Amino acid sequence: MKNYLVVGLGRFGTSIAKTLYEADCEVLAIDTDEELVQEAINNNIIDNALILDATDENALKEVGASNFDIAFIGIGSNIQASIMTTLNLKELGVKKIIAKAVTKSHGKVLKKIGADEVVYPEEYMGNKIAMLAMEPNMMEHLRFSKDFLLVEFKAPPSFLSKNLMELAVRDSYNINIIGIKKSDGELNPSPRATSVIEKGDTLLVITDAKTARELENLK
Amino acid sequence: MKNYLVVGLGRFGTSIAKTLYEADCEVLAIDTDEELVQEAINNNIIDNALILDATDENALKEVGASNFDIAFIGIGSNIQASIMTTLNLKELGVKKIIAKAVTKSHGKVLKKIGADEVVYPEEYMGNKIAMLAMEPNMMEHLRFSKDFLLVEFKAPPSFLSKNLMELAVRDSYNINIIGIKKSDGELNPSPRATSVIEKGDTLLVITDAKTARELENLK
Ligand SMILES: Nc1ncnc2c1ncn2[C@@H]1O[C@H](COP(=O)(O)OP(=O)(O)OP(=O)(O)O)[C@@H](O)[C@H]1O
Ligand SMILES: Nc1ncnc2c1ncn2[C@@H]1O[C@H](COP(=O)(O)OP(=O)(O)OP(=O)(O)O)[C@@H](O)[C@H]1O
Ligand SMILES: [Ca+2]
Ligand SMILES: [Ca+2]
Ligand SMILES: [Ca+2]
Ligand SMILES: [Ca+2]
Repeated sequence: MKNYLVVGLGRFGTSIAKTLYEADCEVLAIDTDEELVQEAINNNIIDNALILDATDENALKEVGASNFDIAFIGIGSNIQASIMTTLNLKELGVKKIIAKAVTKSHGKVLKKIGADEVVYPEEYMGNKIAMLAMEPNMMEHLRFSKDFLLVEFKAPPSFLSKNLMELAVRDSYNINIIGIKKSDGELNPSPRATSVIEKGDTLLVITDAKTARELENLK
Repeated sequence: MKNYLVVGLGRFGTSIAKTLYEADCEVLAIDTDEELVQEAINNNIIDNALILDATDENALKEVGASNFDIAFIGIGSNIQASIMTTLNLKELGVKKIIAKAVTKSHGKVLKKIGADEVVYPEEYMGNKIAMLAMEPNMMEHLRFSKDFLLVEFKAPPSFLSKNLMELAVRDSYNINIIGIKKSDGELNPSPRATSVIEKGDTLLVITDAKTARELENLK
């Protein structure tokens, strides 16, 4: 079983610690802020949390930081502390380091000194939320490659009561319907040519970016 | 064309403003912090940004806040300011308010006073990053419904040089391969029974949560 370390009990680090703890993983969380450590324990976010400064290599050694398979660094505004922590954990031999960055240059430095993955939570979500707001019928999307997107959109009136063969969307719109979600939340994950679109259905489609924008305007 | 307002040029708000501005939307961003406003303009994140306190209803009126179709509130730590801003924008008749919250109780209050959507960027991303770290071969995933996931995973050795019909994965593993991504990043978004899996391929599959975990162990 893998061992996880979470540095920083801000909102990002706390959510990581919570997810790992709920999945019954071995996880230790640390923060310099006594209050946040106490809160995490009191709220049952995690059972193993310590007040510890991750820029202090000896303190990290004492808690056996070299034994962790994966370390998450959730330090944000204190860029120097985020860098020092990455260096320390790399030096101690942690196998994989996933670090949060607040700017692109911060992220570049973290990569250079040994972070295996760099994440920009606020930037990623801001982009996602804005994209969704511009395309209000699309409820979720994912960019698979530079050309293809997965979008979820409400079936337009012209699609209702037709089956996939009648719609022939693959030919007429260059969209591939890979799932049909019913209004009660049930998903049909492998629709057939004979599957009929009904009122309230949400369609999961793979298509290109240009077609995705046009789907917005389908009546 | 829609009009957008972004309150708060933190990392989340900045990313929203940048995405909208790059898509040629009409967008005004405001922050009480002069430096952040100046920085956003200097870095070409946006061309329309003002120093303004969104808790001040009269100031909002003066910049015509009632004309905005969608307002994003990216204020974080100052919960009182986030609440006041939501109230003000609602009062002024902004059609849709999307607000960031830092805790569940903060989010509940925002909903109650009129926010149409509440977002928890750090929590959402922390959960996603932790899930991905626990399932290292899976590169991206999306939960369509309570039962089905979309996962992206490296084709295991036993899949290589076989076509989809030979693999019969739909029957033997309850997975539906909806796309094959080649090592050069090209995506085949509608694989056929005769499509052959090659070394380095990444498979996009829809499957249930239990099967997704088992895919991790496929050799
Ligand atoms: N040297 C350190 N050792 C351990 N924890 C640290 C260290 N430096 C900072 N932290 C902790 O990291 C946490 C996150 O840092 P900070 O609040 O600056 O980031 P943030 O990006 O605003 O976080 P979030 O957006 O996830 O809430 C804080 O609780 C802080 O106390
Ligand atoms: N009343 C207000 N009017 C306009 N802007 C405000 C107001 N109150 C706060 N802000 C701005 O909102 C921005 C985001 O707030 P804050 O930094 O507390 O949130 P955060 O959650 O740490 O942000 P992020 O994680 O997105 O960087 C700040 O730049 C702040 O100056
Ligand atoms: Ca913080
Ligand atoms: Ca901030
Ligand atoms: Ca912050
Ligand atoms: Ca943040």
